[in-house]
Amino acid sequence: MCMGDAIRVLVLGTGQMGSGIARLVHEKQGLTLAGAYARRSARAGLDIGHAIGLEHALGVSVSNDLASAVEQSLPQVAIQATCSHIADAKSEIEFLVDRGVAVISIAEQMAYPACSSPAFAEAIHRLALSRDVALVGCGINPGFVLDLLVVALSGVCADVRAINAERVNDLSPYGPTVLESQGVGLSPQAFEQGLASGKVVGHVGFPESIQLIAHAVGWDIDRIEERRQPIIARVARVTPFVRVEPGQVAGCLHTAVAYRGDHPVITLTHPQQVHPQSEGIATGDRIQISGTPDVRLAGSPEIPGGLATCALAVNMIPHILNAAPGLHSMADLPVPAAMLGDARRRLRNRGS
Amino acid sequence: MCMGDAIRVLVLGTGQMGSGIARLVHEKQGLTLAGAYARRSARAGLDIGHAIGLEHALGVSVSNDLASAVEQSLPQVAIQATCSHIADAKSEIEFLVDRGVAVISIAEQMAYPACSSPAFAEAIHRLALSRDVALVGCGINPGFVLDLLVVALSGVCADVRAINAERVNDLSPYGPTVLESQGVGLSPQAFEQGLASGKVVGHVGFPESIQLIAHAVGWDIDRIEERRQPIIARVARVTPFVRVEPGQVAGCLHTAVAYRGDHPVITLTHPQQVHPQSEGIATGDRIQISGTPDVRLAGSPEIPGGLATCALAVNMIPHILNAAPGLHSMADLPVPAAMLGDARRRLRNRGS
Repeated sequence: MCMGDAIRVLVLGTGQMGSGIARLVHEKQGLTLAGAYARRSARAGLDIGHAIGLEHALGVSVSNDLASAVEQSLPQVAIQATCSHIADAKSEIEFLVDRGVAVISIAEQMAYPACSSPAFAEAIHRLALSRDVALVGCGINPGFVLDLLVVALSGVCADVRAINAERVNDLSPYGPTVLESQGVGLSPQAFEQGLASGKVVGHVGFPESIQLIAHAVGWDIDRIEERRQPIIARVARVTPFVRVEPGQVAGCLHTAVAYRGDHPVITLTHPQQVHPQSEGIATGDRIQISGTPDVRLAGSPEIPGGLATCALAVNMIPHILNAAPGLHSMADLPVPAAMLGDARRRLRNRGS
Repeated sequence: MCMGDAIRVLVLGTGQMGSGIARLVHEKQGLTLAGAYARRSARAGLDIGHAIGLEHALGVSVSNDLASAVEQSLPQVAIQATCSHIADAKSEIEFLVDRGVAVISIAEQMAYPACSSPAFAEAIHRLALSRDVALVGCGINPGFVLDLLVVALSGVCADVRAINAERVNDLSPYGPTVLESQGVGLSPQAFEQGLASGKVVGHVGFPESIQLIAHAVGWDIDRIEERRQPIIARVARVTPFVRVEPGQVAGCLHTAVAYRGDHPVITLTHPQQVHPQSEGIATGDRIQISGTPDVRLAGSPEIPGGLATCALAVNMIPHILNAAPGLHSMADLPVPAAMLGDARRRLRNRGS
């Protein structure tokens, strides 16, 4: 056990996720919110405390310059909450790892980087080895419900024939960006056009979840088929940001099926919509493994994604500092655990 | 990735669990069932294949002598399935670790050895460090449903106030030894006497599960209260081994509550009985975390304990060979994963 100074944490991003993460870092015993980096220039110079919604100043300013944020905050670990895609996340991650800072990223594609960006995955792994630090991608989905939890439950199986997992959530709390990406409020025709133009994307992370599971259980996947269908409202569904009339799109039913030969071995389903309850649809998480033995586990309502992603990112801090250098997936590290005591109590000497 | 010779596995125990484990080791690609040790002298000299219920011989004999079993089988890892308590498991584990063999034990108390045997836990950790091998205790319970899965789910929480977990199972498939330990078939008076004399024990493993959780989340537990109550049958419940009349004991409702100060923070409930369905009681596993956010997950029927314990023990083989030397709990290692490909594909070079 090592109870030296508090662990210095740099948070990248001061949006909803970044602020939530930074507040948690600030609250947790054994962690210090050493710095915050924001892409938006309007944030630069703000006191971090004010930027993340605390009532008091913290005496450190948000920076738009990652290099000076690192120089001033001297972080042991950085949590990246600035984007979803590796193309966008890459330069920040490379910079941090190169400076010897461990990284926890909530960018969806970082849950299993080899999936979208094998060359980057290989390069960042080598860089991390050379700089003696570890990095991992996490989040509620991908990174937990539809992959890590599936892997954990498969651990009780002598054999597995097929995996089905579903997450039904409610988009009502979300703002315009998320709603647009799911096509909420569009006509069915506009939804199809949005899919074609790339404006409607559905869920980001199915291939990552599938490869995370497949790698952990030792399956080679031959192909993945994804399908995005409009969820058509039959009653009006209203949120502060959108009004969906009957006949319009309430959300996107996104599914992904992974095949080995002709066998669908992993099926992930993630219908995202506003107010599913208004048509009698219960939200929830459900995992079903057909194997020896069969395993079924379900919970309703769903684990709330925003809160859970912030908590997961912060709870992984000791694990990533304890980990062997290199790029990891959540299945390579000990399970995340709520951090209710001093974070430093979970640190091990890496040599031991 | 290292695809050398198959991983050599020694199995200790040729009872129901040991045989199930050995059959799985034999079936799995990348593993070799290199030897089997049995305590019962009647097993010595039997061909392992016949001893574990295969139709063909394997050309290796079951041994009553652990030293010669190790010498002949040259195992990299041993799975111990001979007993429940550390007092009983200890000498075998010490012998194996001393010979540089990694150990996976399904002895219930090995799920968190510091709980019942802090001196042994410390000593075996040091011995394992000096011999450069790792060891871990696992099983469905303790080791998975009421602890590891709880820890994993707590990982999405920013805060946790209380944890409740319950496992309702059916003892009907079990033989006389298990039924007696739960008091099945006794009168209520005889059940109380059995508790007093130590003949009725209920579940072995609650303190271990509680300390595994508490350590992972950083809670110090002030005291644990355990309670064993008879489950009285209202209808006749019949198995091949016992007939329970109305008014007699159908099983044991065992609960454990862990307190911090006056607050019950972890409550584990495990009613074990024959034919719960005959009185409308559904079997199942249920985890409920009261925190930020609340998390609820449940599955019915329960994950079958025997099958799951065998699978977990075998599935942990790559993890224990990859692990840093020393004594681990399941919360210290990556989650177990079904091993559906070659076991060697999951091996890492420890140096990397």
